[in-house]
Parts: sequence; C-alpha cells; structure tokens
Amino acid sequence: MNFEEKTVKTNHIFSGKIIQLQVDDVLLPNGEMSKRELIKHPGAVAIIAMTENNKLVMVKQYRKPLEKTLVEIPAGKLEEGESPEITALRELEEETGYTTNHLQYITSFYTSPGFADEIIYVYFTDELTLLEEKKQLDEDEFVELMTISLDDAEELIQSQDIHDAKTVFAIQYLKAKGWK
Amino acid sequence: MNFEEKTVKTNHIFSGKIIQLQVDDVLLPNGEMSKRELIKHPGAVAIIAMTENNKLVMVKQYRKPLEKTLVEIPAGKLEEGESPEITALRELEEETGYTTNHLQYITSFYTSPGFADEIIYVYFTDELTLLEEKKQLDEDEFVELMTISLDDAEELIQSQDIHDAKTVFAIQYLKAKGWK
Repeated sequence: MNFEEKTVKTNHIFSGKIIQLQVDDVLLPNGEMSKRELIKHPGAVAIIAMTENNKLVMVKQYRKPLEKTLVEIPAGKLEEGESPEITALRELEEETGYTTNHLQYITSFYTSPGFADEIIYVYFTDELTLLEEKKQLDEDEFVELMTISLDDAEELIQSQDIHDAKTVFAIQYLKAKGWK
Repeated sequence: MNFEEKTVKTNHIFSGKIIQLQVDDVLLPNGEMSKRELIKHPGAVAIIAMTENNKLVMVKQYRKPLEKTLVEIPAGKLEEGESPEITALRELEEETGYTTNHLQYITSFYTSPGFADEIIYVYFTDELTLLEEKKQLDEDEFVELMTISLDDAEELIQSQDIHDAKTVFAIQYLKAKGWK
C-alpha cells in the first residue's frame, strides 16, 4: 500500500537556532486534506565510549524541556555540511576531554518520526586517550563528566537520572555485547 | 553541580493539534542569558506485542517529517488525562485489531531531551487475542499491519525500513529476552 501524503502547501512558522517549525497542508491517501506539524532538526550524533576500566563515559546536563538534569552518553548536533563521524569526534573531545583514533559506526535512528526529522548517528569506541588540553564547550553548554559501571547504570535507570532514548539504547547495546 | 536554567520569560510561538513551540529566555549557570527552543508534546505509548507464533506485531506507516514509510511497533499519543496503560490498550486495538488482558510496563524514555519533552511509555504483551470487530483509526491515520520474525526484523533494520528509536529499542529488548 502507498500511504504517501502529498504536500499541497508548506507554511513556515518558525526558524530558530536549532529547530524549524512548519505546518504542511497534505493530501491524504483517501483524498481528504489534513495538516502535519513538522520540526526540522539538523541531526545529531551520540558516542558510546568505554574507558580501559570498563566504565561508560557519561555527561550530566540540565535539559530545559524537562526542567531536569539527565545523565546521558555524549552527544551533539551536526553542524552544516559536517559528516557525522567528524561531529562525533568533536563532541567527544569537547564534552569529555577524551579523544580516539577509532570510532566505530553502530547504527542510526529517528527519535520522533511522528513530528520531527531528527536522526541520531551512534558511534562506539573503547580506545580512549585523554586530551592534553581540554576543548571549549559551546558558550551556553554546561556538562559534568562521569564514568559509570553497569551497576551504576542500572541504578541511574531506576532513579530516572538516565531517561533518554539514545542512552537507554547504549546500555542495552553494551549489555548485548556482554558488558558486566 | 547545579546547572539549572531559570526561566526569565516564556515566548509562546505556536500551539497546534499535537505540539506547542515556545522560546524561553533563560538565565545560565554562569549568569549569562540565552534562549531555549522547546517543543511541548503530550507524550506517547508504544507496545511490544508478540503473537503466539513468536512474531512481532508491526505497523507500516508514512511519516511526513521524513517523507518516508517506516515499519514501527504500534504507538500513539496520550489523550489529555488518559493514563498510559489505557492509551496503550486503545492504540493496540485501533492499530492492530488485537487486544489483551495483560499489558506489562517495561520502561519509559524521553526521545529528544535537547528540544522536546516527549516521553514514550513502553509496554509488552505476548497474550494477544483478535478483536471480533476492528476499531476505527483516527481519521487522518493510515497503517498497514505486519507480523515479523527476528530475521525479518534484522533485514528491515539493514534496509532502514525499521529506523526509529522505540522500534530499535523493542528489537534489542526482545533479543536480550532471548527472541530467536
């Protein structure tokens, strides 16, 4: 079956630093008209980074949409024209102070396909070295570095300090790989 | 460390059928001001539903933000005042024609904590019975039912027909539970 929805008109509502909002008038498969509210997002990367002591590198940060601090794997938005692998290395260095020569691409997924086109590319590394000099974060970005064991991760899921899709994915991925 | 960002002013930009957009002027931990673009979403449920033949119940649907058809686990938005478990049963019935007396809560996660407050509550059931009469979908909703094996799932991930966070999570969850 082909359920494609033809765009009859795009209404641009908002263009911000990070997201754009548009409302499309669409022609439904049954011939009726409807409206779709769509968020355009530049896409993002996330990095599953293991230390030589078998701990997962995490960043703690305040998430304004939730009015809450979360513990997440390092992540960040794609800059225009930047390939995801370059973004991943940059965000790893900026957020954690670690670098690597070996980033392995794992998978990608859309976070909210019902209303947004945000995609996350996920990378893995267990070959970390500390940068001699820490990189600068974005001027409105404040994060705290943590390294956690699997036991810590289970506790942080229980307490809902870990509570976002990419980080829940990362922990499941590591468990499936035999992380203990 | 406390990285809380105090809201100095909320600017309501858009209020739609599904999402609301606001831009908050915030006071950063370093005393500077910044802006945060925030999407308010009612929240959603997703259901990992296994048939007695050990197949996963999926729905195929067109996702306008991606201009693409995806294969996903059944899911839907919370109605105002509705508890997630009620939503989960309703969406299972509407989208698949199956019902159940036993929905087990698995976990919840935020999909895009950087810009949206959407949360997904995930349920599991392997006790499905077919409804005698199919329920009505929303008037602008068109889905095709599928049941797939683990091999099918792996292929659909490769072909990126399965490509969203909740469905990738579901497949990892089932694999960790021993799905073959």
